Amino acid sequence: MSPPLANLDHQTRRDFLRSLTAASSLFVTTKSTAADADKAHADVVALLKPGKEKILILLYPGFTALDAIAPHYVLAGMTGASVKFIAATLDPVPSESGFTVSPQLSFDQCPDKPDLLLIPGGTAGTVQAIENPALLDFVRHTGEASTMAGGICTGGLILGAAGLLKGRRATSHWQTLDLLPIVGAEPVKQRVVIDVNRITCGGVTAGLDLGFELLRQYRGDFYAQGVQLLAEYDPQPPFPKAGNPATAAPEVVALLNHMHSDYVAGWGKKLSAVMEQRAK
Amino acid sequence: MSPPLANLDHQTRRDFLRSLTAASSLFVTTKSTAADADKAHADVVALLKPGKEKILILLYPGFTALDAIAPHYVLAGMTGASVKFIAATLDPVPSESGFTVSPQLSFDQCPDKPDLLLIPGGTAGTVQAIENPALLDFVRHTGEASTMAGGICTGGLILGAAGLLKGRRATSHWQTLDLLPIVGAEPVKQRVVIDVNRITCGGVTAGLDLGFELLRQYRGDFYAQGVQLLAEYDPQPPFPKAGNPATAAPEVVALLNHMHSDYVAGWGKKLSAVMEQRAK
Repeated sequence: MSPPLANLDHQTRRDFLRSLTAASSLFVTTKSTAADADKAHADVVALLKPGKEKILILLYPGFTALDAIAPHYVLAGMTGASVKFIAATLDPVPSESGFTVSPQLSFDQCPDKPDLLLIPGGTAGTVQAIENPALLDFVRHTGEASTMAGGICTGGLILGAAGLLKGRRATSHWQTLDLLPIVGAEPVKQRVVIDVNRITCGGVTAGLDLGFELLRQYRGDFYAQGVQLLAEYDPQPPFPKAGNPATAAPEVVALLNHMHSDYVAGWGKKLSAVMEQRAK
Repeated sequence: MSPPLANLDHQTRRDFLRSLTAASSLFVTTKSTAADADKAHADVVALLKPGKEKILILLYPGFTALDAIAPHYVLAGMTGASVKFIAATLDPVPSESGFTVSPQLSFDQCPDKPDLLLIPGGTAGTVQAIENPALLDFVRHTGEASTMAGGICTGGLILGAAGLLKGRRATSHWQTLDLLPIVGAEPVKQRVVIDVNRITCGGVTAGLDLGFELLRQYRGDFYAQGVQLLAEYDPQPPFPKAGNPATAAPEVVALLNHMHSDYVAGWGKKLSAVMEQRAK
C-alpha cells in the first residue's frame, strides 16, 4: 500500500483535510493532558504541511534494485516531495537481477539544487560504475549541489570515488567497510551514519533504515511513525542474529568472506586506481 | 550486493567450488565435535546443490514495487532458480510510485508447473486488478498449477479474489486483514502465514520475511543465513514499536484508520461484488 498523503489528487486531498479535522479530535480525547493535546494538534498541523523536497536516486547498470527501491518507497511517502530515479539517459536501466527499472529523469534534466542524492549499491556493476568518468562527474557535481548526498550498501563507494566522502565518517556493506579509507573516509560500524551532509548505511536492507532516518528528519517523528505503520515495518528476521557479522554464525561469515575475497580485493585495487587518476 | 551463488557463470562457479573446499575445512576447525563437523559438511554439500525452482512474481499496473522487489531479491539468491516478473504483456508496468519495472515473461510465456507464484500488493491498482477477469483467471490457473501461491500485503486479496484462499488461514496488510473472510479465508494476525500451499504476509516490508521463510524452506537454514548476512538484514526500525498496530502509538493507528476508512470500505464492496460474480 502507498504511503499516506503521497500523490493526492485534489478530491482526495479535500477528503483528507476533512478526515484530519475529525482525527485531531481523536487525538485530544486519547491524550491525557492539555499540553499533550496541544502537542498532538501541532503534530497534525505539521503533518499537513507538504514539503517540496527534490530527491534523486541514481540508477546505473547493475544496481541492486532493493537498495534503490526501499528508500524510494519510504521517501515517496512525503506529501509534496518529488522522488525520482535519475540515470544518464531515459532508457530503462538493467538491475543486477536482470529486470529493468525506468529512470524518470536523465542527467541533463537534473534539477539545480536537489535536497538529496542517493546512490544504490551493487556488485560488478558498481565496480564498473566507478570506472565511468561521466557518471562520477555527475555524482560529484550533483552531490555537491545537493543539501545531502548519500549511499546505500556499496553505493557509498561510488560517492567516495567521486570525492564526496573525504574526511567524513561513513559506512558501507560490512564486507566493503574497510575500503572506505581509500576514498578518505573513516569507517564506522553502524547501520546508518550521518556526517553533516553525507549519509551512508550498511548492506541492501539498511536502505530501509536510512530512508526512515531521513523521513524523520524531513517530516518529524509523528510522520515517520505513520509511514512505518503503513509499511508494517515490524521486521521479524528468520534468524535474529544472522544479519550482522558480529553476531552471525562464524561459519556463515567465513564462507561469505571466502566467497567474496577476490571481489573485495578487486574493488580495493580499482578504487585506488580511480582515486589516483582523479587526483591528477 | 547480489545474493551469493546467483547467476554464476562457468568460471565463477569453478572458483566458487574451489573456495568451498577451503571453506569447508574452516567449518571443521570451528566446530567442536565430529558430529557438528559432519553436519557442517553436509550443509556445505546441500548448499552446493543448485535447484531449478521456477518462481513467478506478478506485475500489474499500480503494484507496490517494494512488495515485489523485496522477495525477488531474497529468492534470486538461490543458485539455479529462475525468478521472473510476469505480466499480461512484456510492456513495462507502472508501479504505484510512477516508475516502471519490466516483466521478463508475458502471461502466454508462463511455464507449465511453476514452483511459486507471488502477488505483490498495492492500493488503487490492486482494487482495479480484481476487476480484471483476465488477470484473475491467470492468477487462478497459474496459482492452481503452482506448488505454492502467495501474496504480499494486499496482494493476498488478489489471490483470494481468484478463489485461491477458500478455507485457508491467511494474513494481509493490517488494515485489510478483516476483508479476508469475504474471500473465504480465516484471518490470522501474524507476519507470515503458511497454510499448506498458500503463503501470505503482512504489509509491504513483510515481503522480506516471507522471502526468507521461503528461502529457508527451499534451501535450508544455512543458506538462508548466508543470504540474510549478505543482505545485512539486521533491521533497526527507527521506532521499534511503530510498525505494528498492536504496539504503535494509538493516535498514529487512529489517523491511518481514519485516512483509509473509505478505501478499506470500498475494497470490501468491490471484493464482495467480484466474489459474487465469479461464483455464478
